[in-house]
Amino acid sequence: MSASEGLVSRSSHVPGNLTRQLANSAMGREGVIALWFGEPDVPTPSAICKAAQESLDAGETFYTQGLGTDFLRQRIAGYQSQLTGKAISSSRIAVTLSASNALNLAFQSLLSEGDKLVTTLPIFPNLLAIPSLHGASIETVGLRPTPEGWTLDIEELIRRVADAKVVLINSPNNPTGWQMPEEHWRALLHACRQSGCWIVSDEVYARLTFDRPRAFSVLEIAEEEDRVVTVNSFSKTWAMTGWRLGWLTLPPSLVASIERIMEFSVSCVPTFSQRAAAVAIQQGERFIEEQNLRYCKNLEVVRQCLSKIERVELPTASATFYSYFRVRGVDDNMAFATRLIDEAMVGIAPGKSFDASKEDWFRLCVAVSKPRLETALARIETFLS
Amino acid sequence: MSASEGLVSRSSHVPGNLTRQLANSAMGREGVIALWFGEPDVPTPSAICKAAQESLDAGETFYTQGLGTDFLRQRIAGYQSQLTGKAISSSRIAVTLSASNALNLAFQSLLSEGDKLVTTLPIFPNLLAIPSLHGASIETVGLRPTPEGWTLDIEELIRRVADAKVVLINSPNNPTGWQMPEEHWRALLHACRQSGCWIVSDEVYARLTFDRPRAFSVLEIAEEEDRVVTVNSFSKTWAMTGWRLGWLTLPPSLVASIERIMEFSVSCVPTFSQRAAAVAIQQGERFIEEQNLRYCKNLEVVRQCLSKIERVELPTASATFYSYFRVRGVDDNMAFATRLIDEAMVGIAPGKSFDASKEDWFRLCVAVSKPRLETALARIETFLS
Repeated sequence: MSASEGLVSRSSHVPGNLTRQLANSAMGREGVIALWFGEPDVPTPSAICKAAQESLDAGETFYTQGLGTDFLRQRIAGYQSQLTGKAISSSRIAVTLSASNALNLAFQSLLSEGDKLVTTLPIFPNLLAIPSLHGASIETVGLRPTPEGWTLDIEELIRRVADAKVVLINSPNNPTGWQMPEEHWRALLHACRQSGCWIVSDEVYARLTFDRPRAFSVLEIAEEEDRVVTVNSFSKTWAMTGWRLGWLTLPPSLVASIERIMEFSVSCVPTFSQRAAAVAIQQGERFIEEQNLRYCKNLEVVRQCLSKIERVELPTASATFYSYFRVRGVDDNMAFATRLIDEAMVGIAPGKSFDASKEDWFRLCVAVSKPRLETALARIETFLS
Repeated sequence: MSASEGLVSRSSHVPGNLTRQLANSAMGREGVIALWFGEPDVPTPSAICKAAQESLDAGETFYTQGLGTDFLRQRIAGYQSQLTGKAISSSRIAVTLSASNALNLAFQSLLSEGDKLVTTLPIFPNLLAIPSLHGASIETVGLRPTPEGWTLDIEELIRRVADAKVVLINSPNNPTGWQMPEEHWRALLHACRQSGCWIVSDEVYARLTFDRPRAFSVLEIAEEEDRVVTVNSFSKTWAMTGWRLGWLTLPPSLVASIERIMEFSVSCVPTFSQRAAAVAIQQGERFIEEQNLRYCKNLEVVRQCLSKIERVELPTASATFYSYFRVRGVDDNMAFATRLIDEAMVGIAPGKSFDASKEDWFRLCVAVSKPRLETALARIETFLS
């Protein structure tokens, strides 16, 4: 009998991340241009690293407060107050070991077995897996692709939140780049106030926008005690994917619950990483501008190339560093992505990973140098013709 | 209506960590000698920090493999093979963001709602809270204090594992310093093989032993495919509490499940921290020897002082850096610990945190300088007389 035979935990029912599976099978293969992960190709800016290095020199290697150090919570609160135009108290901030950790804490706190969670599709698969692991029963509303971009039927979403415990919105959205418009946010918040539904807003791509300086945040319209939790990350904005740093912004009455369960999750976040995070916020604006300019140009490079190919459908997007496109005629998503690696030496994420019904969609991350992207696109073009 | 009103998730039923509550209320208070946390008072050795600093200079700030980098998994496997005398393959190692993260992954993988978990008392409260959060129904067997040390009724434990999904053993034990003897381990493993019960062995204090070079590990007698999971940490052994670094050693058939859910937990562990961890294992033996000598001497200092006080009962212990002692006549655990802070300026952990029935027990961490410890003990002595 195998040791794992007969496991029936919640976790055994949750499907794995297909992108991770594909990447694991081909990671490090010579000559492959890997555009599967959502990760900038540049290391963390040196000023940010330096803050961590100095902290280590200063011996900051001890346990610290579960909700984060005062200096970082204050820095985050100041940053978020400035972005949203609302005064956000540092006491509402919880520093976490990645946005994933933040999502786990939020859902562990909010969900009981069988509670209904509503969200949109396509979506980053971990955003379905994490609430499932905490007992959620998930309902989805599909975004629709149009040449002008992805659109949401807000009426349908609002109908479904009536008996839901949580509505999860990821805007700007991975993989589509869709941004939920302000009027939809207002309608959703209004509906949630009526029914008592919680809003969990995953804002990790909030700064990767090209039509405006930052994405609209629900915090701009929410009151302090609204049932609204926002999730953020240092990963995409400041090229800190490997650090595993994120944060939650909470209503005051949820803070004690999160502090209590943080102790049982990872207890606290390294102080030296928190020093780095504080410098990222303080000195990172220029880096964000530079990177966004690059992403925006690269997305245009992708558009110009792929729009020439008749089989390809690529809705407009104005945020994130992803192109999410359809290749008509593909009937096996993973097989196509695997062949693209084997025959064209380009790695992209299978679109099915973000929506099981999207057998002929794929995601490509443009956070690479322009020459590398152009080579990858030329290979894709050849492969498709 | 408060935002958090009506929350009925599993997490709302799990009590908080009393030590953390006490410490939060008095942390940083001028003049208080804090012996409440289980943490060495020295920073991480500089050679270990240097490895992380160099990794940051080299730009190792990207996502990495979910189960850990090859270099660290191999280093851990070699270290654990040497300690246990068994060949442990690096493919069985999962690097985690703290032992807490490791425990969460293990229990998330093994437990379903209502599954029975058996463990011993007293125990670190997080070891009850974490499986509870993953749905376990917990049964405990009490260790008994004798002047010669703490003892376990192994027959009773074995009776209880017959219909349990998991038995959790923390040996050496926080807070008592109890070590489960080899013959008990053999009997328990035999019983678990018969019934199919999983053994989760929390070995984070395995190197803090004073009667032998290392604690007995169940890995010394288990076969690769036995239902045995061990949990380890870099925190106590190498003074790396603030880094949040641990690992799991798994049966091969459980590895894929842990890899899958690691993606949804924290995704991966920072590469620069893994570089530090590899150096800890490679160069840290002398540090362990020095620290253990200090802890052993300090435990003797505590024994000599407290054994003079008639109200105090202190069973012998030969592992960990804790003294777990009884003060007869105390009828409110938290109130006594609070008064000790306010009136004697010494912070110790309430013993009730480790066993709800232990109203008159307390835990003191000796990982401080001898003069500081002596001052604290003199204050306790005065307070008690």
